[in-house]
Amino acid sequence: MDYYNYKPAEVRKLVREGIIKGPTTGMCGGYAQGNLVILPEELAWDFLLFCQRNPRACPLLEVSDAGSKSFPLTALGSDLTKDLPGYRIYEDGILTEETADVSQRFEKYQKTRGKLVSFLIGCSFSFEAELMEAGIPVRQIEEGVNVPMYNTSISCAPAGVFSGNMVVSMRPIPHKQVPTAVAITAAMPNVHGAPVQIGYPKAIGINHLERPDYGDPVTIREGEVPVFWPCGVTPQAVVMNSRPPFVITHAPGHMFITDVKNVTLKYR
Amino acid sequence: MDYYNYKPAEVRKLVREGIIKGPTTGMCGGYAQGNLVILPEELAWDFLLFCQRNPRACPLLEVSDAGSKSFPLTALGSDLTKDLPGYRIYEDGILTEETADVSQRFEKYQKTRGKLVSFLIGCSFSFEAELMEAGIPVRQIEEGVNVPMYNTSISCAPAGVFSGNMVVSMRPIPHKQVPTAVAITAAMPNVHGAPVQIGYPKAIGINHLERPDYGDPVTIREGEVPVFWPCGVTPQAVVMNSRPPFVITHAPGHMFITDVKNVTLKYR
Repeated sequence: MDYYNYKPAEVRKLVREGIIKGPTTGMCGGYAQGNLVILPEELAWDFLLFCQRNPRACPLLEVSDAGSKSFPLTALGSDLTKDLPGYRIYEDGILTEETADVSQRFEKYQKTRGKLVSFLIGCSFSFEAELMEAGIPVRQIEEGVNVPMYNTSISCAPAGVFSGNMVVSMRPIPHKQVPTAVAITAAMPNVHGAPVQIGYPKAIGINHLERPDYGDPVTIREGEVPVFWPCGVTPQAVVMNSRPPFVITHAPGHMFITDVKNVTLKYR
Repeated sequence: MDYYNYKPAEVRKLVREGIIKGPTTGMCGGYAQGNLVILPEELAWDFLLFCQRNPRACPLLEVSDAGSKSFPLTALGSDLTKDLPGYRIYEDGILTEETADVSQRFEKYQKTRGKLVSFLIGCSFSFEAELMEAGIPVRQIEEGVNVPMYNTSISCAPAGVFSGNMVVSMRPIPHKQVPTAVAITAAMPNVHGAPVQIGYPKAIGINHLERPDYGDPVTIREGEVPVFWPCGVTPQAVVMNSRPPFVITHAPGHMFITDVKNVTLKYR
């Protein structure tokens, strides 16, 4: 089944009803998808401050009210505990559950331990759609694998309990198209923006392109340059570093689909 | 004395020593200046959330750690309680003091009542410099008055105790230059970005251009269109609406001068 031409609200409903189970890649063409991080209220200030200080790695699309299950500004009528096809629950930094519905765990936590705050973080799916529209290859999509991601030596600005280095994603770009790829992504700061490094991985502490720290290696062809963008795995990695008592995230590739068009992310 | 060619750290030092007293307009050409809001820690979450939800009116340049007197990311070595030439202190929503040094009041509050958090908010000085560079007139500068500002019917997205409508600033732009003015400011989202209204003030609830709610009226010449931008007075107005027990802001025109070049605000 191809959901490219479906509206986000339709797909969210099908997800909520358990009809759509898979990853959300390729669904609702033109609409922004987001990474989800749900944290206890007592960690929310530090995390919001971390995102404010590191907007390229952690571009916030929306932050919920404490205790709320919805993102009214980017997806009216959504239920963020049911509208993603996959979630992961971490307790004390350890993955304890992978599920398609966290509504009961969310409610139980709030009844017994305190309020939760939900963060929706922009995702590179948005700029990849524009790169492809411009005829720039996106290798991991061509090869049907996950984008290669690397830990770097670039320090994020710390905030409270959260600190760590930036994680980047890499796409090999034909050298003639590098300026276009930079221009396209620089125009979308709400979904990571311009690259942080072009062509010299050692400068940011990456010594083995063939062995990414997350995701899969991809082919770099003759005449292509490895280009590195800030990656939404950064906030997840930083959160896990601090071993919080309770966190819910989306499962990899199982994103929250918003009602916001990618093109409008340029002008918010 | 003309401080256009001074470095920000030099001017901040002269301010701190009481040698520079006036408004900061025209100082440190090319560098971003910011609005200051200092709030009690218990209001900081709601305010940070308000800014996140209303980034056009409240573009954050930096948020301090609770209790800190510095903005290390935008102005290393600064002391935000001394480095502005003018401050206003409000208690329970009422202006109680105007001064050039709030260090003692800041310390006393923290000793007796709790921590403070400081917010630095982008300012239209940054985009006005680019407009003038492009040969677009900035009328209130030509006429030596404050920019005219208006309350509007545009609701901000509320957050906790903070809610209210957007305040906008108006600049009359020759109709042929309107597209250029939009393009220049749209490229600077961290200092309010593109206009919210062009040429039809009634659509946003403004019925009397000659009677601004803040600042001064300016001449609109034949062939010019009134263009409205989100204004940094919005967060101040919203904070005052909620009558917080204690707030420190910059005095109008007496801004915090950062080490950040305006041009880099496009790519943060």
